[in-house]
Amino acid sequence: MSRIESITITPIAFRDPPLLNVYGVHEPWALRTIIEVHTESGHYGLGETYGDTQTIQQLRSVAPALKGLDIYQLNSIRQRIQDTIELPDPDAGLEIAPGTLGATTVPRIFSAFEVACLDAMGKITGRPVYDLLGGKVRDRVDYSAYLFYKFGRHQFTDDPWVDRWGEALTPDQIVQQARKMIDEYGFRSIKLKAGVFEPAQEIEALKALRAAFPDHPLRIDPNGGWSVETTLSLLSELDTELLQYLEDPAPGQSGMSQVSAATPIPLATNMCVIGDFHLRSAMEQNAVQVILSDHHYWGGLKATQDLAYFCKVWNIGVSMHSNSHLGISLMAMTHAAATIENLSYACDTHYPWQDEEVIKGGKITFTEGAVEVTDAPGLGVALDQTALAQLAHNYDTCGIRARDDVSEMRKYIPDWKGTVPRF
Amino acid sequence: MSRIESITITPIAFRDPPLLNVYGVHEPWALRTIIEVHTESGHYGLGETYGDTQTIQQLRSVAPALKGLDIYQLNSIRQRIQDTIELPDPDAGLEIAPGTLGATTVPRIFSAFEVACLDAMGKITGRPVYDLLGGKVRDRVDYSAYLFYKFGRHQFTDDPWVDRWGEALTPDQIVQQARKMIDEYGFRSIKLKAGVFEPAQEIEALKALRAAFPDHPLRIDPNGGWSVETTLSLLSELDTELLQYLEDPAPGQSGMSQVSAATPIPLATNMCVIGDFHLRSAMEQNAVQVILSDHHYWGGLKATQDLAYFCKVWNIGVSMHSNSHLGISLMAMTHAAATIENLSYACDTHYPWQDEEVIKGGKITFTEGAVEVTDAPGLGVALDQTALAQLAHNYDTCGIRARDDVSEMRKYIPDWKGTVPRF
Ligand SMILES: [Mg+2]
Ligand SMILES: [Mg+2]
Repeated sequence: MSRIESITITPIAFRDPPLLNVYGVHEPWALRTIIEVHTESGHYGLGETYGDTQTIQQLRSVAPALKGLDIYQLNSIRQRIQDTIELPDPDAGLEIAPGTLGATTVPRIFSAFEVACLDAMGKITGRPVYDLLGGKVRDRVDYSAYLFYKFGRHQFTDDPWVDRWGEALTPDQIVQQARKMIDEYGFRSIKLKAGVFEPAQEIEALKALRAAFPDHPLRIDPNGGWSVETTLSLLSELDTELLQYLEDPAPGQSGMSQVSAATPIPLATNMCVIGDFHLRSAMEQNAVQVILSDHHYWGGLKATQDLAYFCKVWNIGVSMHSNSHLGISLMAMTHAAATIENLSYACDTHYPWQDEEVIKGGKITFTEGAVEVTDAPGLGVALDQTALAQLAHNYDTCGIRARDDVSEMRKYIPDWKGTVPRF
Repeated sequence: MSRIESITITPIAFRDPPLLNVYGVHEPWALRTIIEVHTESGHYGLGETYGDTQTIQQLRSVAPALKGLDIYQLNSIRQRIQDTIELPDPDAGLEIAPGTLGATTVPRIFSAFEVACLDAMGKITGRPVYDLLGGKVRDRVDYSAYLFYKFGRHQFTDDPWVDRWGEALTPDQIVQQARKMIDEYGFRSIKLKAGVFEPAQEIEALKALRAAFPDHPLRIDPNGGWSVETTLSLLSELDTELLQYLEDPAPGQSGMSQVSAATPIPLATNMCVIGDFHLRSAMEQNAVQVILSDHHYWGGLKATQDLAYFCKVWNIGVSMHSNSHLGISLMAMTHAAATIENLSYACDTHYPWQDEEVIKGGKITFTEGAVEVTDAPGLGVALDQTALAQLAHNYDTCGIRARDDVSEMRKYIPDWKGTVPRF
């Protein structure tokens, strides 16, 4: 009865603002995939993951092999994926989005199905997903205001849509963006995506944020955009009053470890520790003091709990990373986060940057910067088939098939390199 | 419906042979406690744990506070225990039985209830416990032949019962014991409990076992009974041909770490790593290469999975430790072990040393040294109320209230010290 009868895999696209990062700029459309796992009992569970062509192909290549497996037998499902999937070069993919890297293939593909199976299990047993993960330790999960430098609008698209956030290229505009986002969502922590401008200008923005929001913990994430030397030279401008943590200033565990030795500011990462296989070497080098998990590439919600357990044992912090996503992913993150006692910081989310949704009821509401844990069965969300059809149509017509911030930026700056470290 | 309506806690005692170890000798009766968690839905789940007075008092002191909590909300149950229980001195207790140590109080008490809740959850949902833990990765769990030096019978009891294993004080008698146990149970690995005689005599027994069972992996466990110096002097007699691993030769992480630096034989422990709080320092010193988990004091079946995850990340081995126990514990171990991919060795069990049972159907059968994973709901065992009443009567009349191998040995050897290291 709880065996998998069929799986539906739907690539979707939704509008994405021209957000800037060290690699370039977001394209006009962000891609995701919606997974529906249907059981013989007539229930279904939802998953959401990356929407690049390779991920879609991988999801489709393993789905037939999962038919007939029991949704409770997650270890068998993972094993079947491992046995079925063609493994790409571990280094292939986009560093800024670890979920596109070859090294995370099996956990990434498994995660999409694991979340859907947990959702279905919850619907069958009448329990929220957090109960299937050992029960919640909090009723609300805090998220942070995730600020981006950005253009006012996409210049190279026929789509007349313009996002509601406006241009943000100066410290003042970043403070305005923060004000607007905090007014609307109530966030109580702030993260600035950096690596876009000269470090001095970005630190100026940080200081402007500190002045405007004296009680909000701040973080900055240059995505490895600063060299070790540059980072070391900036440390005199940074301290634990200004920064709650410093995320991926320089690339690689060895670079992070050199920075770590020179500052009391905790270093966080979602780039140099992206799977179990990275943990031991990172700890042996003391490369990071906070690991940002992401169930989409760590291998699901139970794997996120496993990582949190490791962080508890090693006495380091743990929180959550995000890429552009919709409500299924937001609720999956929220259910997992609700069960993790040692979740040390507000989680990241791109959610405010999207206007569209694929779930019934539209966008999920934040109160005081947090998402309330739903007690409804499963993830507590249902698919809006009309919205899904529209977003699938977007995918069919948008022309984008894999995220490529570098090429998009070359439309604005023809000789753009998109390599790190930039500074 | 899945809230806890009532909890029944029944101390029991069953006959135990005069097994020798570094601390002394087992008393004529071994103590356990049987936990029944009854839900509002009319289901019940079973747990089994230590039966010393302190554990019984702790179980009884927290049980009323668990009434009304939901069996799915294990994190809340653990928190409630943490908030309710009076914490003893972390160092109080018997080193040979880490489950009696103050440092393991919360995980030990929680574990008994966690197993019972998982059993009840399984009965409610119709799923075996392994499915609630992510699904099995094997159908059978291997155990090892756990050999003990022993007296022929207890000399200081009126009980006419004599165990069926006979005296084992020489290498020949140990080989006979192994032969009998392997004939009956089919075990394919052998562990010798040591620290009883001069190391040279015990190594002679190991070599006799190697000659008699050339294909059976061997282990020896002196329970920290050898000093570091003694252990180092014995290493020329020990190698990876003779030993699969060397368990707790010397006491403490620092002692183990000195031994570890001097031998290629993996060191195992259930003494110097007995909780999350020990893991980091053990890894930093490379004190051990195999951790023997025990859900009874690590904090339950999910905690056992957590430990296995840690061992996977650190690329060290993991298996299971045992104290005297009955079938509820055996099935709890088996369900957890069935879900752990990186379980590296056959698990330990004292099970062959007991003739009595508390579950319906009597003693669980081993085939080729393994227990088959049951697909029945929950743990797959039911309480035999008649047997429970008899074992509870044993507890009431046996006069033992806490395990004390040292005092029991003093009846045989009045000036017995029972301190480690002995050699
Ligand atoms: Mg980041
Ligand atoms: Mg031991």
